[in-house]
Formats: sequence, C-alpha cells, structure tokens
Amino acid sequence: MSKVTIHELSKHIGERVEIDGWLYNKRASGKLQFPIVRDGSGYLQCVVSKKEVDEASWNAVDGATQESTVHVVGTVRAHQKEPGVVELGVETFEVRGPAEDYPITPMEHGTAFLMDHRHLWLRSSKQVAVLRIRSEIEQACRDYFYQNGFTLVDAPILTANAAEGMSTLFETDYFGKKAYLSQSGQLYLEPAAAALGKVYCLGPTFRAEKSKTRRHLMEFWMIEPEVAFLEFDGLQELAEDFVEYIVGRAVERCQEELKTLERDVSKLANVRKPFPRITYREAIELLASKGMPAEFGDDIGGDEETVIANSFDRPVIITRYPTAIKAFYMQPDPNDPDVVLGMDMIAPEGYGEIIGGSQRIHDHDLLLERIKQHNLPLEAFQWYLDIRKYGTFPHSGFGMGIERAVAWVSGVHHLRECIPYPRMLNRIYP
Amino acid sequence: MSKVTIHELSKHIGERVEIDGWLYNKRASGKLQFPIVRDGSGYLQCVVSKKEVDEASWNAVDGATQESTVHVVGTVRAHQKEPGVVELGVETFEVRGPAEDYPITPMEHGTAFLMDHRHLWLRSSKQVAVLRIRSEIEQACRDYFYQNGFTLVDAPILTANAAEGMSTLFETDYFGKKAYLSQSGQLYLEPAAAALGKVYCLGPTFRAEKSKTRRHLMEFWMIEPEVAFLEFDGLQELAEDFVEYIVGRAVERCQEELKTLERDVSKLANVRKPFPRITYREAIELLASKGMPAEFGDDIGGDEETVIANSFDRPVIITRYPTAIKAFYMQPDPNDPDVVLGMDMIAPEGYGEIIGGSQRIHDHDLLLERIKQHNLPLEAFQWYLDIRKYGTFPHSGFGMGIERAVAWVSGVHHLRECIPYPRMLNRIYP
Repeated sequence: MSKVTIHELSKHIGERVEIDGWLYNKRASGKLQFPIVRDGSGYLQCVVSKKEVDEASWNAVDGATQESTVHVVGTVRAHQKEPGVVELGVETFEVRGPAEDYPITPMEHGTAFLMDHRHLWLRSSKQVAVLRIRSEIEQACRDYFYQNGFTLVDAPILTANAAEGMSTLFETDYFGKKAYLSQSGQLYLEPAAAALGKVYCLGPTFRAEKSKTRRHLMEFWMIEPEVAFLEFDGLQELAEDFVEYIVGRAVERCQEELKTLERDVSKLANVRKPFPRITYREAIELLASKGMPAEFGDDIGGDEETVIANSFDRPVIITRYPTAIKAFYMQPDPNDPDVVLGMDMIAPEGYGEIIGGSQRIHDHDLLLERIKQHNLPLEAFQWYLDIRKYGTFPHSGFGMGIERAVAWVSGVHHLRECIPYPRMLNRIYP
Repeated sequence: MSKVTIHELSKHIGERVEIDGWLYNKRASGKLQFPIVRDGSGYLQCVVSKKEVDEASWNAVDGATQESTVHVVGTVRAHQKEPGVVELGVETFEVRGPAEDYPITPMEHGTAFLMDHRHLWLRSSKQVAVLRIRSEIEQACRDYFYQNGFTLVDAPILTANAAEGMSTLFETDYFGKKAYLSQSGQLYLEPAAAALGKVYCLGPTFRAEKSKTRRHLMEFWMIEPEVAFLEFDGLQELAEDFVEYIVGRAVERCQEELKTLERDVSKLANVRKPFPRITYREAIELLASKGMPAEFGDDIGGDEETVIANSFDRPVIITRYPTAIKAFYMQPDPNDPDVVLGMDMIAPEGYGEIIGGSQRIHDHDLLLERIKQHNLPLEAFQWYLDIRKYGTFPHSGFGMGIERAVAWVSGVHHLRECIPYPRMLNRIYP
C-alpha cells in the first residue's frame, strides 16, 4: 500500500492507498458519509459506507470537525458521475489531530478577521488557488529570463542609497550607520549588466507609504531585468514578450485554480503581442476625448489608467512621459527633449500599471546634472556614476510588481490576497 | 548583418556580424593586433590586420584602453589552433565609450580596494564565473522544488517575531511599532504547509552579528522547504536528493565557469546519494578518536566540522543533536529524549555546514512549554501555536544558505565573493 498525494491519485485507480490530510467538508446520506479531504495538492471525495467500515471509522467520520487532520485508507476509483474525477472507497478513517472551533467557517467573515487569521485563512480554497497562481507566475518569470540567457543577480536589500525619496524608506541602524530597505534593485543591476550583459533580479522591495488603497503593500516583490546595449524600442518588445509568456503559462498550467476563482479566462486569451503603444501626448488626447481633460505634465492616475486601458483589448504601453514626472535616471528623447524614453504598461480590466521601465541615461555629465537637480546625495551615487565613466553603454530595463501581475491574472482586486503574508499599514501580524 | 552576442557566435561561422562589448585585454604583433572583447556572454578574440582595416579602426584598437566600450564589425571564423573556439576577422573597430584609468588592472589589488569597487570588480572573469554559478544554482533550486510539486510561498521580510534572539536582529520602525528583518521564513512556511502540502521559500535573510569571519554575511539568501506529513527520515532523503541535484546541475551546465575558477570538479563528482549519516553521539566519538575530545552538549564548531567532513568522500549528515543546543521548535527523539530530530549537512573540503533542518514539534502543549522555557514572547507566537491547535500534523523542513552552496561548488573560500553586493560588518557600499 502506498502513501500518495491527492493530486497523483488518478494514476492509482484500483489501488489501495493511504492519504494524510485535513477534513475540508462533509455530508451524509443515511448509511453513507462523504467526507471531503484536502492535502494541499487537491481535494478528494471519500465514500464511507456503514456496511463496509468498522464502528471506529464510522464514528470518526461522524465526529470529525472541519480542519481536523485525518488519515484515510481506501481504494481509488473513478467517480461514477464526473469523468476524470476520482474518489476513495474508504476502508479505515482516523482523526489524528482534532480541530475544535476552527475560526474560519463557511460563513462570511470580515476582512479584518480574515487578515488576523491569515495563517489559517491560507487554507481556504480561493487563497490556495491565488497562491498557486503566484507560484506559477514567479517560476514563469524566472524560466523566461533563464531561457533567454539572463543571469540572476540578487540585488541587496540593505542599502545606503535613498533613490526615490527619503520619506517612504524604512530605516535601520547598520552598526552605527543608517541603512534603508531597498525600493528597487535597478541601480545595482546596471553595473552587473556591464559584467554579465543581460541580468535580472526578483526579490522583496519596500515602501513605507502611509497609503491604504487596494493597490499598495509595504512589502512587495518585484522582477527587474536590465540589459546592456538594449535601447528603447527593444525594451518595449522585451516587456510585451515577457508578459505574453507569463500570462500564457498561468492560463495553461493553472486551469483548475482559475476555475476556482471563477476567472473569465477569455479576457486573458487576448494577451498576445504586439500590444498597442501610445505616447503620453496621445494618452492626454485620448483622455480629453473621453471627457477627462489633462494637461502635459499631469500624472496619469488610477482612474485615467482605467479609461485608457478600456480603450484596448489587451495591455497598452504608454511611452515618452514628461521629464518632470519621471525618475532622474531616464534617458531624454532625442527628438522631443521635454519627454523621456520611459514606458508604463497598463493591464486591462482596471488592474492598473503592472510594468514601469526606461532607457537609462548613459552620459556621465547629464546624469551628474540630474542627480544635482534632484538634490540627491552625490557621494552615495558615485559608484553609480562610475558606470558612465568606465566604458559607458546604452541600456534599458523595467520592473514588474509580482502582486499586481498575480491580481490581474487571478482576477482578485485587492493586492493583500496576492502575497502569503501581506504587510500593510497597521498590519505586520501574523 | 546581425547583432549577436559572443555566446551565440559559433552558430554564425562565415557570417558578418556586429558585436557590442568592452575591451578586456589586447596584444599586438607587428601588423596584427588582437583585442579581446567581452560582452557579458563570453570572450572573443578579434584579429585586426593593418592591411585589412582603415586607419581609423587600426588607431582605435591601438588607443583603446581596458574596459572601453567597443563596437566591432567583422566575419566569424573558426580559430586556427583551438578547436571549438571562434574568432572575429575585423572589418571596423570603434570605441564608443572610453575608459580612462580603469581602477582594476590585471595587477594584484587588496580586498578592501576590490570591495570598495565591487560595482566594477563584478566585471572580472572570476567574479563573472562565480555569479553565473550562483545564478545556475538558484535556478536549479527552484526547478527542483517546482518539478517536485512544491508551491513557492514567499515568506515576509518584515516581521514582529523575534525567533532566534533579539541581539542579532535588524530593527526598524513600522508606523510606530517595532519590526525586525527576518532571519528565516520557516515559521511562516509551517502554516502554508497546512494549506499547500509542500512549500518552499527562497529569499534574503538577515543577521546583525558582529562577526567578521569568511563564513558570515549580514544579508544572505536562504532556501527553505517545509513539508506536511514528512518525518525525520524523509527529511534527510529530501535534503540529499536536493543537494545531489543542484550540484549535478552546476557541474553539468557551468563547465566553463568551473574551469575559469580552476575548480577540481572530480571532488564534486562524488556528491551522489546516499550520503553518510552519523548521529551527534557518533560524531563526538569520531572527534575523540581524532584527538579532539568533546562532551555531549558541546557545539560542533568549524574546526570540528572540517575534521568530520574529512572522514568522508561526500557531504555527511549529522543527526540527533542535544536538545539544549538546538532551536526551541525541534521534535524530541522518542527513543532518546536528550536529543532532537535535527540534522546538519556538512560539505566536504572544509566548506562547513550548508544545511540545517529538523522535524518540528507538532504537539501544542510541548511547543508551548518550549516557548516559555526559551523566554520567547508568547503573544507573538500565538499564530504559530494555532497550527498545532487546528488539525496538527507532523512536518519537517530545512534551510540551505545559497552563498555557502555557491562557495563550495565554486571552490571560493570567502562568502563575500558569492553574492553580488555583500553586506558585511562596516560594509554597505556600494
């Protein structure tokens, strides 16, 4: 008799097996009981017939409560009505770890309650589905870059740099010096691109923003490729090729999970390159035509993004933003000096910006000027300037927030469900 | 004419190509110059004949300094003497980004100097090789768990828990509360194992230890699997199967890099399961027989580890350590209550401990007692205790430090070269 996971059971039809798991739900009908067992790999309907089991097993099923740990022995068989589904004809059923008053019941709970019990809420079928999609998307991200000749370069988390404004940095004491938690690996990837050509990082990033929207987390994961000698057009091609790949992988390999989440996958089938591309100037015109007047220099906010996204059937790339509203390191457009070679990719269906990227300034003196204009501490950026001093090269990269991509693909509106243990304003437990 | 990377050149023999890269080195012999160009994907010898190029190209090669950015056009051809190697018959050679007085020359530099210039030192051939091996090992880790049905569960970095002693924690203000940088994802993986069965995390972990040895970093990456219903014997099998896989992958796919590092790969060929396993009590006896007396309850330090490792031709697993010297959550051995079902794996050749793991206590009351004995703040561990309250289950897991594995496989003795931007005592720049 073999110990198997529920996911593997279809390969064991007709065999006697042992299953370890938790009681997910149950129903009864006279002399039959139907406990549903989950083991993390899947869900299994067990069939317990009073005639075929001893009294201890029958009573164990009868008394078992939600989320009790159970050990079941039985024979795998095809489900009589549902093709492709297996069930277990039970021989013995044993409760090995009882669960009294499990706090999360099939009834509705408020979000605060669920978040307080995140360590248990993870067991719910929708949470399991979202986390599996997250896992698939992260592996797809890594496979994409691995297969395309990129080298993984883990950027540091503790940094002396304060690139995007002191006010949103978490600070810590580093043996008497101040250190900050990284908001992006980009600055560290640029020197690595000079060493290894094509590089990427994927790790946690931090933003101490007093923000409570559904699109913000204090701690989130970001994937950032950086490529030597890649210019702005190539960057946009890389971004759309990458997004097409990861969405396609999730749709192909997470069919069950997307079904559990009732995700309309037809909306994801359109994610095929080329994606539409519009300039910021065109976006302003588009917004005006939709009754949302904006001026050159205005930020494109969440509502505006949704209006733009709704004008297309797949992600849209907005390019060439005003210099004043973008980061100091972005390369100016040689044909339109008021704008930079920066891009954002907006997901459809109101999921907002998922990618931001740019060609980077590679001229030493221009970068120095920008660092001064932005009042950044020059000595902290000396090493970053060095990359323009010793064999400078055009290069480009982007960042994609993992949780935003997971939210979009899963059809989950709040980022807090797209990461195992969300860190939000006033929430760092569990 | 196509723009290709050096790595791809062997597929383009006879073709005219463009290469972007940096000048790595050069030599000259009368009317021939041989610049060696690197582009991050590999190294290429270019052959420049005074008869065949114009004066501008000839002078550009002549004047080009180390690490200048160069653009080369030429025809790919097989190297006349070295089979399998290609070279480029140059047509035009252009310096696009000069490098004056590049600080890292082929002469010897001190470590402090090199670490101050880590952003440039990354370009050196040995550093490139180590980082490629690191990238391969991390991808191998992820592929191993992905292919074996594990779900990636990213553990949080910011945590309210202080599991392994306050004195070595980095602290930060979290909107008026104290938060710490995580030292391990394990506590967060255990609840996730109840949701998803087999889970793992791979992320940065932090230790604010005032330690300056070659085996310590303040920020390092760790991979941690956690498996529901896995007991101690299964844990050891998982650990050895995993290590065999990742070492095999690096040896197979990083042949060039291992050659660059002059690594004796015959030493790695032995990394085949089963690995020898000895108990802590046997290790004490072994040490005594080698003239290193130790008593039950003593820690096994670095020197002792090396003596033990040298007694075997592959990694060795030491099991069943005294309860008093191991973490509070380790399951007692039912047959020997003074020891726990914990294991360390020691790498050969003096590379020390690479894996630490254990079966976890799954009895609620015993765990509660241990939390109290260790004076840990009970309210911070309530959620962790919950996992023993609602359907408890035996489970096990381990952690492997990525840098230690990279150091061993690469044959590099100091961990600081095994991570792109090391964070050490007094070093957080660049």
